[in-house]
Amino acid sequence: MKLKLFVHRLSQPSRAVLIFCKLNKIEFEEVQIDLSKGEHLSPEFKEINPMHKVPAMEVDGGFKLFESHAILRFLACASPGVADHWYPADLFKRAEINSVLDWHHANLRHGSAGLVFHSKLAPLFGLPSDVQAAAECEKVLSASLAKIESFWLKEEGQFLLGNSKPSIADLSLVCETMQLEALDEKVRQRLLDPHEKVRKWVDDTRNAMQPYFGEIHGVLFQLKDKLKEMESDE
Amino acid sequence: MKLKLFVHRLSQPSRAVLIFCKLNKIEFEEVQIDLSKGEHLSPEFKEINPMHKVPAMEVDGGFKLFESHAILRFLACASPGVADHWYPADLFKRAEINSVLDWHHANLRHGSAGLVFHSKLAPLFGLPSDVQAAAECEKVLSASLAKIESFWLKEEGQFLLGNSKPSIADLSLVCETMQLEALDEKVRQRLLDPHEKVRKWVDDTRNAMQPYFGEIHGVLFQLKDKLKEMESDE
Repeated sequence: MKLKLFVHRLSQPSRAVLIFCKLNKIEFEEVQIDLSKGEHLSPEFKEINPMHKVPAMEVDGGFKLFESHAILRFLACASPGVADHWYPADLFKRAEINSVLDWHHANLRHGSAGLVFHSKLAPLFGLPSDVQAAAECEKVLSASLAKIESFWLKEEGQFLLGNSKPSIADLSLVCETMQLEALDEKVRQRLLDPHEKVRKWVDDTRNAMQPYFGEIHGVLFQLKDKLKEMESDE
Repeated sequence: MKLKLFVHRLSQPSRAVLIFCKLNKIEFEEVQIDLSKGEHLSPEFKEINPMHKVPAMEVDGGFKLFESHAILRFLACASPGVADHWYPADLFKRAEINSVLDWHHANLRHGSAGLVFHSKLAPLFGLPSDVQAAAECEKVLSASLAKIESFWLKEEGQFLLGNSKPSIADLSLVCETMQLEALDEKVRQRLLDPHEKVRKWVDDTRNAMQPYFGEIHGVLFQLKDKLKEMESDE
């Protein structure tokens, strides 16, 4: 299976797919689609993903797939040697992980991606910041973090659903939470400080996925420095 | 397996789960959670789904699950005798269905549920209509219907992805599209008239799933009549 991944490391779902492949020794070619240069809008990339989003993948120059959760599920099942804890074969355990992954879209993802976009990234794309949209997304994000703290993280295990090893749900949700690094430090602290279990879970997941977690997140910290610099120049 | 489904037939994902079970002869007990009476907010229902949403399910008084796509995937895999076309065992075909299901959340679902809520249901729950939010959701909905027309529906088959038989993705997305019956007729026509393939796909899916599709959607048409009556009284 010859795998091509179309990604941008500033996209949190792209990072999740890259880390998954590296951790599981799945060979792939990484094709950078630079969102800031509009490469996702090109006619060539439309042939890969008509929704113009990253990540997307292609197998053996034929089969194409997009949506990071669909990609993670596929790779976990189709790649030999991926440990069961990532996406268990047991139907009950798998169903719970699907429940987290489906919940994610309208909750943590909607809140976090929206807040970062409306408050930080829009100006980089030449768009105005939208204070009201940012505030609405922050409300969704805040409620989502509270649900992770009070429900998805159980007492017994380090990871979501009380598991002792990470699943593709931990990977997806932690990559999303990491995106908050792009926010002003005081906003990020206001959001995460009330949630001790969430902070520990992010650290535990990061530690369980080194060295790739750090390597793939490098570009996010570069963005963070760049945003700080731009703001101190104003 | 003793299955309890916690549903409200005015909720489109609830309807999808109910229709799936009836079509596939999966026995269940239907527990109505009336959203208009706030029954989803009760402490009893919090024990079933701490997110306070329907549908949710319980197996043998123990295992609990929520998020309709996670429920549909689980039931398709765990129930004996469910035909393969609903959620194929082939990893490539299954991945494509997962891609539709994941795409759905931030697109058709976000647009349709948001538009119907902000323009029609909010007043029934004692909340003000939000014209700006409704307009934003209509934009997302309109773009989503265009993508179903131009990409997800292929020439060769009646159903999504060019399939000749329906999958759980057809079921979920058609139940969402049916919710537009709650809108004013002229708004619904404005949205659906440009999309001939979408209208045919809704009809084909409905016909393939009778008599249960009609039976389970009865309450939606009652709501439609009620909304019309309320408006003609104004």
